[in-house]
Amino acid sequence: MNVLVINGTPRKHGRTRILASHLAHTHNTNYIDLSDFSLPLYNGEKDQQDMQEVKQLKEMALEAEGFILCTPEYHSGMSGALKNMLDFLGGDHFKNKPVALIAVAGGGKGGINALNNMRTVVRGLYGNAIPRQLVLDPVHFDSEQRMLTSDGKELVENVFSEFNVYLETAKRLSFK
Amino acid sequence: MNVLVINGTPRKHGRTRILASHLAHTHNTNYIDLSDFSLPLYNGEKDQQDMQEVKQLKEMALEAEGFILCTPEYHSGMSGALKNMLDFLGGDHFKNKPVALIAVAGGGKGGINALNNMRTVVRGLYGNAIPRQLVLDPVHFDSEQRMLTSDGKELVENVFSEFNVYLETAKRLSFK
Repeated sequence: MNVLVINGTPRKHGRTRILASHLAHTHNTNYIDLSDFSLPLYNGEKDQQDMQEVKQLKEMALEAEGFILCTPEYHSGMSGALKNMLDFLGGDHFKNKPVALIAVAGGGKGGINALNNMRTVVRGLYGNAIPRQLVLDPVHFDSEQRMLTSDGKELVENVFSEFNVYLETAKRLSFK
Repeated sequence: MNVLVINGTPRKHGRTRILASHLAHTHNTNYIDLSDFSLPLYNGEKDQQDMQEVKQLKEMALEAEGFILCTPEYHSGMSGALKNMLDFLGGDHFKNKPVALIAVAGGGKGGINALNNMRTVVRGLYGNAIPRQLVLDPVHFDSEQRMLTSDGKELVENVFSEFNVYLETAKRLSFK
């Protein structure tokens, strides 16, 4: 099972990083952490394609059978850091692969616009954003211990569980 | 293969009806045509649940293994007629079933907001809106013959082809 978890927060001490790191460690997945993975701002120029990080990103994305995208909600959308990462990729990396979407927000109704934003963009990459999605609020984190609460972990596992079913069946998708 | 095609236009002579009717006949699917299927405006009252059309809708949706939703774009969204029909349904009818989305628009960039609107709503029903989607413009219809052009038919077949692959594998999705 080759799954790529993305931490979409550029903050070293962001809650999204706690979530993404938890997912990657619990399920032993591949992991890209945008708080310490140095991608340039995508400009469409050829010389960016030769950069080590860009090559590594594309290789990992090509080999992935599915993705879990974790983002903070910034101004009613995913982070610019995550969008910038996706701008380097395309249908070759995502086409018909299952993609789970999780947003980390500040409470209230926050996070939903980030999820909708990711869903539209993943569709633009021809990925299959699965139905189950999740917003994690501050109440789902133990801020002192810098970890998810047990409730938070359970919510994340529910998403992973559905993702995993799609991952298994995606191998059987056979397109002409 | 139990597929339910929905004609989401309330217009008797709308182009969306030409599309939906073409799909239903070509692939011998079940079909609900909102230009002659008398649903009331959903009000949440119990007496609506006993109405013949409401019962029939729910039964057909429950038995369907997948859906193809066809809508005109009205004011940057799906038709109110289609949204009203979906308001009678829920996760019981849609959960993890593949759903193909097609919009019929007037040209330019029209249709995309209707697709995004349907994608968000289908997610709210826990359906699996597949990656491939389509907008059909006036150029894809032969207005004199009241039919799709051959180019239009080919585009529709491309959507159906991907939908069909998801339909086959959806049978193998096994959730706890």
